[in-house]
Amino acid sequence: METNETKVVPGPGSTLADVEHLLDMPLQQAMMTQRAVRRVHPDPVDDAIILRLIELAMKAPTGSNSQSWEFVVVKDRAVKEKLQKRYRQAWSLYGSVGRRIAGGDEKMLRLMNAVKWQVDNFADIPVLIVACLRTTPRSGHLPYVPLPHIATTSFYGSIYPSVQNLLLAARAVNLGASLITLPLWSVTSARSILGIPLTVTPVCIVPIGWARGRYGPTTRRPVGEVVHLDQYGNRPWQGVSSAR
Amino acid sequence: METNETKVVPGPGSTLADVEHLLDMPLQQAMMTQRAVRRVHPDPVDDAIILRLIELAMKAPTGSNSQSWEFVVVKDRAVKEKLQKRYRQAWSLYGSVGRRIAGGDEKMLRLMNAVKWQVDNFADIPVLIVACLRTTPRSGHLPYVPLPHIATTSFYGSIYPSVQNLLLAARAVNLGASLITLPLWSVTSARSILGIPLTVTPVCIVPIGWARGRYGPTTRRPVGEVVHLDQYGNRPWQGVSSAR
Repeated sequence: METNETKVVPGPGSTLADVEHLLDMPLQQAMMTQRAVRRVHPDPVDDAIILRLIELAMKAPTGSNSQSWEFVVVKDRAVKEKLQKRYRQAWSLYGSVGRRIAGGDEKMLRLMNAVKWQVDNFADIPVLIVACLRTTPRSGHLPYVPLPHIATTSFYGSIYPSVQNLLLAARAVNLGASLITLPLWSVTSARSILGIPLTVTPVCIVPIGWARGRYGPTTRRPVGEVVHLDQYGNRPWQGVSSAR
Repeated sequence: METNETKVVPGPGSTLADVEHLLDMPLQQAMMTQRAVRRVHPDPVDDAIILRLIELAMKAPTGSNSQSWEFVVVKDRAVKEKLQKRYRQAWSLYGSVGRRIAGGDEKMLRLMNAVKWQVDNFADIPVLIVACLRTTPRSGHLPYVPLPHIATTSFYGSIYPSVQNLLLAARAVNLGASLITLPLWSVTSARSILGIPLTVTPVCIVPIGWARGRYGPTTRRPVGEVVHLDQYGNRPWQGVSSAR
């Protein structure tokens, strides 16, 4: 109360005013240090920060500028426990298959342990953001046209760019975040838990809380391995490990 | 040649060295001024810039860290013309339906005129980046598990976050870019044009060139209208037009 100094490391208790300037993180730094940060503190997160992150998410493009997104912010423990139950069911299937496949792959086992932590502590994560899309067009917007591949890819292309904005903005302010879909394996059940009507589809969940895990550099395949020129399989930049 | 000064406005002729520092644009500025910039110059774009944008795209998350993306960079005019033909076919269907629906909506008509420009000039756009996903798991990664909603949403959730990184990075360096799917309406045809095997699915295209159109602020629905608390339909922040 004596000073107006901005907190250096944002965490439990930080307000939007404390962290707003962190959203000015250099774009490439945010991208190059984005990780799935699943281990988070149970402390509440300022609603204004969550709204600001969603506001930035909504700056992403949507097909025909439809802006058909809806975001359900879950803070109620009873609702989180119901989603946790579904998450645990899907994880018991994926997890056991995954462990067998992963074998001795240490990186994969680390990932799976982090997911296990998330499953076990799901109801303690302060905020779950469920990203949804309306499936009925708004008036004045393009209706369904019977080109199935286009319909499907355009649908998801109208929500995941916003989810990536949400993840990058969370990274910038040091809120742990990740992208998960397993708790939504039964759409019927997810709709019933969240009161979502049939005209809206829950697409993924971003669990958010003040980071216990750390953001930092990630490793990827060399860019030249995944870039093809004009024809698939023609990879003139193979051997180029970095564009810089 | 006399000076090493950085060009103030990047455009035709700019190299990666000229624009690299622009990738440090403040994160929220990049998001808040991202638009679909469809009108671009026909001049070539430095390959190194394209590779750097894709490298940043590859920093996005993927399901189970599968990194199953492949990017086909199309610069060959003959290939672009084949994709243009498919784009025109889909547009003749969508465009006529769309114009009828749009009625007098000026914003929608502006969008449609920009798409029309893109269709007509598709072969002159210097670079088309076709974002693809392999559908077969790499060894050590999770196989298909029979939860159809999860499988579909996780699939697209493993490519569109990277596409959003690509779009944000393009915006930062003033390369016009947009997200389109119409030229891919026939997956069979797209595979044949690009030599893509059956184990890989083309998901969307990002046409790229030096911007003729301008990036700038966008308008969106107020955040309080699309955010629900705990149950869909419970909107305590309705009336909040901005989080700040």
